Amino acid sequence: MKLFSSVNDVTDLDALVAQALQLKADPFAHQYLGKNKTLALVFMNPSLRTRMSTQKAARNLGMDVMVLNVDKEGWALELRDNVIMNGTTVEHIREAAGVMGEYADIIGLRAFPGLKDRDEDYTEMIFNKFVQFCGKPVVSLESATRHPLQSLADLVTITELKIRSRPKVVLTWAPHVKPLPQAVPNSFAEWMCKADVDFVIAQPKGYELSTKFTQGATITYNQQEALADADFIYVKNWSAYEPYGKMPEVTEDWLLKNDSLKITNNAKVMHCLPVRRNLELSDEILDGPHSVVVHEAGNRVWAAQAVLKQMLENL
Amino acid sequence: MKLFSSVNDVTDLDALVAQALQLKADPFAHQYLGKNKTLALVFMNPSLRTRMSTQKAARNLGMDVMVLNVDKEGWALELRDNVIMNGTTVEHIREAAGVMGEYADIIGLRAFPGLKDRDEDYTEMIFNKFVQFCGKPVVSLESATRHPLQSLADLVTITELKIRSRPKVVLTWAPHVKPLPQAVPNSFAEWMCKADVDFVIAQPKGYELSTKFTQGATITYNQQEALADADFIYVKNWSAYEPYGKMPEVTEDWLLKNDSLKITNNAKVMHCLPVRRNLELSDEILDGPHSVVVHEAGNRVWAAQAVLKQMLENL
Amino acid sequence: MKLFSSVNDVTDLDALVAQALQLKADPFAHQYLGKNKTLALVFMNPSLRTRMSTQKAARNLGMDVMVLNVDKEGWALELRDNVIMNGTTVEHIREAAGVMGEYADIIGLRAFPGLKDRDEDYTEMIFNKFVQFCGKPVVSLESATRHPLQSLADLVTITELKIRSRPKVVLTWAPHVKPLPQAVPNSFAEWMCKADVDFVIAQPKGYELSTKFTQGATITYNQQEALADADFIYVKNWSAYEPYGKMPEVTEDWLLKNDSLKITNNAKVMHCLPVRRNLELSDEILDGPHSVVVHEAGNRVWAAQAVLKQMLENL
Repeated sequence: MKLFSSVNDVTDLDALVAQALQLKADPFAHQYLGKNKTLALVFMNPSLRTRMSTQKAARNLGMDVMVLNVDKEGWALELRDNVIMNGTTVEHIREAAGVMGEYADIIGLRAFPGLKDRDEDYTEMIFNKFVQFCGKPVVSLESATRHPLQSLADLVTITELKIRSRPKVVLTWAPHVKPLPQAVPNSFAEWMCKADVDFVIAQPKGYELSTKFTQGATITYNQQEALADADFIYVKNWSAYEPYGKMPEVTEDWLLKNDSLKITNNAKVMHCLPVRRNLELSDEILDGPHSVVVHEAGNRVWAAQAVLKQMLENL
Repeated sequence: MKLFSSVNDVTDLDALVAQALQLKADPFAHQYLGKNKTLALVFMNPSLRTRMSTQKAARNLGMDVMVLNVDKEGWALELRDNVIMNGTTVEHIREAAGVMGEYADIIGLRAFPGLKDRDEDYTEMIFNKFVQFCGKPVVSLESATRHPLQSLADLVTITELKIRSRPKVVLTWAPHVKPLPQAVPNSFAEWMCKADVDFVIAQPKGYELSTKFTQGATITYNQQEALADADFIYVKNWSAYEPYGKMPEVTEDWLLKNDSLKITNNAKVMHCLPVRRNLELSDEILDGPHSVVVHEAGNRVWAAQAVLKQMLENL
Repeated sequence: MKLFSSVNDVTDLDALVAQALQLKADPFAHQYLGKNKTLALVFMNPSLRTRMSTQKAARNLGMDVMVLNVDKEGWALELRDNVIMNGTTVEHIREAAGVMGEYADIIGLRAFPGLKDRDEDYTEMIFNKFVQFCGKPVVSLESATRHPLQSLADLVTITELKIRSRPKVVLTWAPHVKPLPQAVPNSFAEWMCKADVDFVIAQPKGYELSTKFTQGATITYNQQEALADADFIYVKNWSAYEPYGKMPEVTEDWLLKNDSLKITNNAKVMHCLPVRRNLELSDEILDGPHSVVVHEAGNRVWAAQAVLKQMLENL
């Protein structure tokens, strides 16, 4: 594997999930693989889980890790071509990516969307330029439209915890106070559409995701209908795809509570975190027996380790 | 040891000090202990000595270290329960701590007090919630009311440099321009009260520490009286316990100079650092033969290493 | 080697360059050297290349690395002596440097000039105080007036890529929108003056460097004249030495384009990076066959590794 940016970069989804679970059972079995190899983790945006779990995954494989908060420890990068750089950007992504490629064997990059120019975000302008110019294998640590390490960890969690084959998995929209990217729901949707699950998306009118990511999913505007007999409920807020980055008004109450789960198949409740309590998800669910959010976050290590292992084997 | 938050977590104080001095003599003797173990250092506030010395201590033991500046590299954490998180906090400490516990074998946490709500600070609300929810052994890197790694390093320094048994140790208040926490003096006091020293606290009226930390100490408002025949002088500013976090006016001059040391037993002068020169402590003392402040800071490594070693042995 | 702050700290320039190229050919041959040794990288200013390449170099030698962004993760340091620290500085460089010396075997320090007080900058007040008080070998990661790791990497690059003995090397001034330090051009000049090259400096009137760094160089105000038959062109902006830190008006066009290179000996174009595209250097050069800027940045690893190796051998 030379690139891990979406589910389409995975040749055998089942094998990758199985590999992650095997690494969870035996984390230190492949430490020779990463000897004298360096992973650079480049953050253009904040991170907690991704930052820590990917470091841990790399160290488990014997790699060295360098973390760079490029905005805070370096400077603002120029992303547009053919401009005279006489403003506030100090270095072009062409040079910055190229140079980082000189210092690392594998690079992880986090680059959130601006949520202003949909074309720029959905062509993954920043991420793809970085990949093009760094010349090394790249792992997405969340890009403008996808968060594949999260989605792999989610699928690992579902595989690990399911109590019947082809479980019903529901992605349900949740409220928020500010517009969030569509990266996590897009990514979860495209992974679930390829996985052996019965996949349903529930969201208010106006919050439909790009159909590019939802082929094969059942889509509904009725949360309760979606939850019936569900095994896994994935809760997440996102802003509108059209009008892009906006928050159309929602009059119904989409905040899940224990009562909402009665019609499920004793569903596990998932969230990528960070979660705003009592806005996106209620205390009673997060502190109760349905929630698996911390366990799910723990699986981020094994997802990252499975991906890094494949990349190391192909260096 | 599963928790290192105060002197009360230490079962054998003399043994722990002896262990630290043994590690100083042979720093790399236990590198097998930390193999494949990860220490996460989580900072909610700035740090220089604690950040570097604890990293060094962990690496000496063969551990991996991950450093997280949670506010700067992550986001603001919500600390209160039962709130709707529709403000500026992005993640609750319940999830954040739980998730960090998934990625580390031992966690160090720095969380300063707000100095506004004494009950909140003195119940160690933040630190204790973190301990409760992370599910892993926790080392305090300075909490609202204590700084135990500093106090252990201080006791190691006194043990190492004393020239008579049961030395006289004086904690003396020093001036400052802004209100500082009571964590360092509280902590130093409770460690000295348990150590085999003659312990005196000198401070201006209005700066009495909570009696919870000073049981067994001689307390005086007269600095010169306190310094007579002293072997060690620990200089530190702190704000008032009552009215909490305030700075009652002080009319006498509490800034130590060489002349002030004449009546001591050729005392060593200590400070936890950072120290504001000529405000808390004079140039002539800091640059003269009495000062051991840099040596004392060096002992932070062995204090941290002794604590981490005990924790690793009990994982 | 106990100090690496300028070309004057190097006893055998050819041997050091040869060592760097040998390490490039066999990066992991000396991992035993750094075992249980710690490099602290202390940044008072932003950094990308230096931060990453020096980490990589140290790890290649088996060292541990601690990175400290002293302003962001710690606090503001006081640099002046004999002051009452009742303002915004929290710790004096005397204590800060001394303490860091307790935690590391070798220290790298980056401290940019203020560009206001030339005497302060050109006596290297900050850097030299740090060296004095830390008590450990120090590597400059760019100081007020020099950037020796960059210059060594530049000489390594020239040695590696030259197609004739005693190549012609031109340092040419380039435009910018704000005043930059003279550290890189000063340093490049003093290294080139000691190397076996034909060295020319071209700059507009008012931008003459201090003659302390340019002894032996040919100096001209005519860029095209300088470029004739050049093998290497080093492009860089700097502010005036006199009046210090100012930007005297320049009416000619100093921005290099492909056409400017026609009279060269098919010259390689170098830059220390970061470079502002189409302000300092044109897209067509940076994206064309003349540019070696990314390759040059890659050589930063081997320059740093050669220096660290010499220091480790002398610990």
